[in-house]
Amino acid sequence: MTSLPEIQAMKRALELAILGRKAVFPNPMVGAVVLDSSSNSVGEGFHEKCGAPHAEIVALSEAGAAASSGTIVVSLEPCCHYGRTGPCTDAIINAGIRKVVIAMLDPHPNVSGKGKKQLESVGIEVETSVLLDEAEILNRVYLHYLRTSRSWITLKMALSMDGRTAAKDGGSRWLSCEESRKQVHRMRASAQAVMTGAGTVRYDDPELTSRGSEYTGEQPARIVVSATGDLGNSRKIFEKPGRVIIAVPESVSGNIQEFQREFGADIWGFPADSTGYGFNLTLLLERTASEGFGEILCECGRGLATMLLRKKLVNTLSVFTTPLILGGEGLPAFEKLGINSMVDSIRLENVRSSLLGTDTHLEGEVVYWTD
Amino acid sequence: MTSLPEIQAMKRALELAILGRKAVFPNPMVGAVVLDSSSNSVGEGFHEKCGAPHAEIVALSEAGAAASSGTIVVSLEPCCHYGRTGPCTDAIINAGIRKVVIAMLDPHPNVSGKGKKQLESVGIEVETSVLLDEAEILNRVYLHYLRTSRSWITLKMALSMDGRTAAKDGGSRWLSCEESRKQVHRMRASAQAVMTGAGTVRYDDPELTSRGSEYTGEQPARIVVSATGDLGNSRKIFEKPGRVIIAVPESVSGNIQEFQREFGADIWGFPADSTGYGFNLTLLLERTASEGFGEILCECGRGLATMLLRKKLVNTLSVFTTPLILGGEGLPAFEKLGINSMVDSIRLENVRSSLLGTDTHLEGEVVYWTD
Repeated sequence: MTSLPEIQAMKRALELAILGRKAVFPNPMVGAVVLDSSSNSVGEGFHEKCGAPHAEIVALSEAGAAASSGTIVVSLEPCCHYGRTGPCTDAIINAGIRKVVIAMLDPHPNVSGKGKKQLESVGIEVETSVLLDEAEILNRVYLHYLRTSRSWITLKMALSMDGRTAAKDGGSRWLSCEESRKQVHRMRASAQAVMTGAGTVRYDDPELTSRGSEYTGEQPARIVVSATGDLGNSRKIFEKPGRVIIAVPESVSGNIQEFQREFGADIWGFPADSTGYGFNLTLLLERTASEGFGEILCECGRGLATMLLRKKLVNTLSVFTTPLILGGEGLPAFEKLGINSMVDSIRLENVRSSLLGTDTHLEGEVVYWTD
Repeated sequence: MTSLPEIQAMKRALELAILGRKAVFPNPMVGAVVLDSSSNSVGEGFHEKCGAPHAEIVALSEAGAAASSGTIVVSLEPCCHYGRTGPCTDAIINAGIRKVVIAMLDPHPNVSGKGKKQLESVGIEVETSVLLDEAEILNRVYLHYLRTSRSWITLKMALSMDGRTAAKDGGSRWLSCEESRKQVHRMRASAQAVMTGAGTVRYDDPELTSRGSEYTGEQPARIVVSATGDLGNSRKIFEKPGRVIIAVPESVSGNIQEFQREFGADIWGFPADSTGYGFNLTLLLERTASEGFGEILCECGRGLATMLLRKKLVNTLSVFTTPLILGGEGLPAFEKLGINSMVDSIRLENVRSSLLGTDTHLEGEVVYWTD
């Protein structure tokens, strides 16, 4: 049985966990709350960044002696292995905790139920699956990485009501209201990296930085995907602080060393591949994950957006729709996706919809057709 | 100076006016509230239908002797001419009213300031433009009719996030969530007529009636626009109560007399016209207005929707967007509209946005490019 104070503590633990969003990857986000033997909250903690103490350690340390005979409520199963920090199960046992309440078992091969077993083996009561759905949504990037070794892609688009990204002449200023543009700057501020295609760089010369009151002091990395390495005369992408990565087929990576020399950009070369964007985008997203980018905000044109969807690499789709019409001659959001009938359509689940100024915003996790 | 009780009374008058929405055309919707000399509301009224007493008469009659030395608050300038009923200005003067508060002067050539002047000529204080914007929006169908002699067209569309009306194979079930479909049934229930193209009739065989708990007991008229008179084997449009009109070029109206004979449908023939939908749609909307259809809900396919927008005949655009993607091969909302750049885009003003289940809904009055 879970008590009301325990459920309230779990809600708080999930809130705390989110505070680590930008820096914990490839670790999961975790929050923990310690309740004393009278169910008063006596300690809180969250995992702040990869390498920093785990949430349980922070919360137990804040609780001190008050943790004795108490309960620890934690959004993920405590670890039982020596990683960069000691096992949390030992710390919980040593603190004299009597009950552990867990939202989600940790599917990581080093844990996956072993933490729970170790706690139970010394007589601690363990309860799991408390607010499980919320915890799974919270750690979707971590779970996705364990399954696929890839970064999570959020594809953001600004469209007219009739699904066009730009007018016939390519112009798209402004296809979003001010409130929507602010929301995009908040999304950039909370993303570790922003990705786009070379076509967008050549055409729009974007900064892809977070600006205005939404800027939090740290700029996302900018990743440019190019089949040729041609960025035209665009240079704004290099101007602001933050890492810039240019991903190209190996065959052209030698030709664009000027970007490395002049701007310190990283050039990533991948084996040429006729089925992708000059190279296999899956390899790129494995590389980005291995370099610590858990979630990437993709703001790109039709070509890259279409390729990412075709290869089922988009995880969250985030569409801002503005109340205007650009007609059949406007540039469409996507090229052909291989969808013949309604049953093949790409659907969203866990849909979040909202009103932003005069725009609407629909966001959710992508559910692909089954082959 | 307008007092707070007068402004509150005007809000109430505007609410009352809406109650006449379905039946007053070609008259305006009007509501009236009588305040006694201590600013207490002592009478209310609205114009219920064309031919029925005006709002002022109803409100004054309810107020009786309490109107003496009082104020009448009315959403539109009182009439001063003998139409189907006597002039309201006479009734106001006879009731001993001291002040008249008006939202909007009536642009009808028989009134247009003459009512106000007549009241002032006998020493009654007249104040105008109180909640003017609200009153103009309320009577947009009436104002449009005075300017153009045409019915007001509300074009409703259900689209995917990428602006598609159907999948590649033509299927569109269900491109709206249940809440949106309910809202459409409410729109049909409050519309005098629903219009569609023959292609939609042939392909979908729709009833175009209001169903479910939204059905109010009266079905809208159904108007089918056809260049050829070919309705295929579709017959559902004729099955439910309510008038059915088939609008065709004169040249084919003789060929479809079966619909008149078998189902009692009205066949309207118009001179053939190569620039429109087989005939000039403007003539159709003048005819519908002259037959008492103030506002028509248009639920049609790409062809008719495109033609109506090209000819600037759509007044309100109402788009339901559902969180799925149909890709570049899906059927687009519109064909080419002659929009080359963002400045030419068709915009909405007075935008109403809302969330309906997992869908979003954007609605507003259409602002066209200037030629």
